[in-house]
Parts: sequence; structure tokens; C-alpha cells
Amino acid sequence: MISDDVKREFLVRFGKRLNKMRKSKGLSYRKLATLCETIDHSYISKIEKGEANITLETILELLIALGASPRDLFDFEIQL
Amino acid sequence: MISDDVKREFLVRFGKRLNKMRKSKGLSYRKLATLCETIDHSYISKIEKGEANITLETILELLIALGASPRDLFDFEIQL
Repeated sequence: MISDDVKREFLVRFGKRLNKMRKSKGLSYRKLATLCETIDHSYISKIEKGEANITLETILELLIALGASPRDLFDFEIQL
Repeated sequence: MISDDVKREFLVRFGKRLNKMRKSKGLSYRKLATLCETIDHSYISKIEKGEANITLETILELLIALGASPRDLFDFEIQL
């Protein structure tokens, strides 16, 4: 049984990775949002706080906006 | 505007990567499904064919079942 804590930690770690990559590209929430199609700046903030269980298509949107590879965006460890 | 083709290609590439990793661990659909909580073998088949826009929590479930890292599962290129 995957506990809610482990699920939440995964979303938080994904969010932290996204936050780090956004900042490394010198992008604000609003600037990254302008590079996205369906995601606004407040949703990016929610994703970065680990509060959004996003889908592969939203992940793709972020990858294209960041100009990043899937491997790069998922370059973090999970806590089991 | 991200075309539906680009979205679909991303899901297909994720599915191919999942397929490759499942096979490299010698797991059948049914065996991988038994290691998952909420995913059955037919849904794994759909994901591998790029027909399922899954969420981060489903991705976590697959990672735990495969014993893989996020970086490994997302080690593929996207076509822009």
C-alpha cells in the first residue's frame, strides 16, 4: 500500500525539481506561464508546492516551456 | 500551440520506455500489475501503447513496482 505521505513526497520532490529548473532558467512563475498554453502562474505555484497531481500532457507542456528533456525534469530520487 | 500529434507522440514514447523497462525486468503485464495497487494488466497495455494520459501518482506506482528511478523511466527524448 503506497501511503499518502509517500505520494505527497513524490509530488513535492517533482515540484522542487520544477522550481529549481525554472529558477535556473531565470524564469518567474508568470514568465513560465506565458510560455505554457493551459497553465497559469498560480497553477505553476501549486505544482511546485506538490499540490497538483498533474498528467503527462501537462508535464509535456512544462518540458516544452522550459526547453528541458524528460530525464532532466525527473532527475530526482523517490523516497520509498 | 502543442499539436495533438506531439502530445500523442510523448505518450507513445513514455509507453515505449515503460515497455522496455518492464521487459528488461522480465515482467509480464500481469506480473507488473500484481506489483501495482490500482493498475490492472489491461491498463498497463493501454499506457504502453500511448493511450493513457496518466498522472504523477500513477507514475509513482509504476516506479515502485519496477524499482526504477524517475530519471530512468523518463530517459527518452521528446519530439517538438
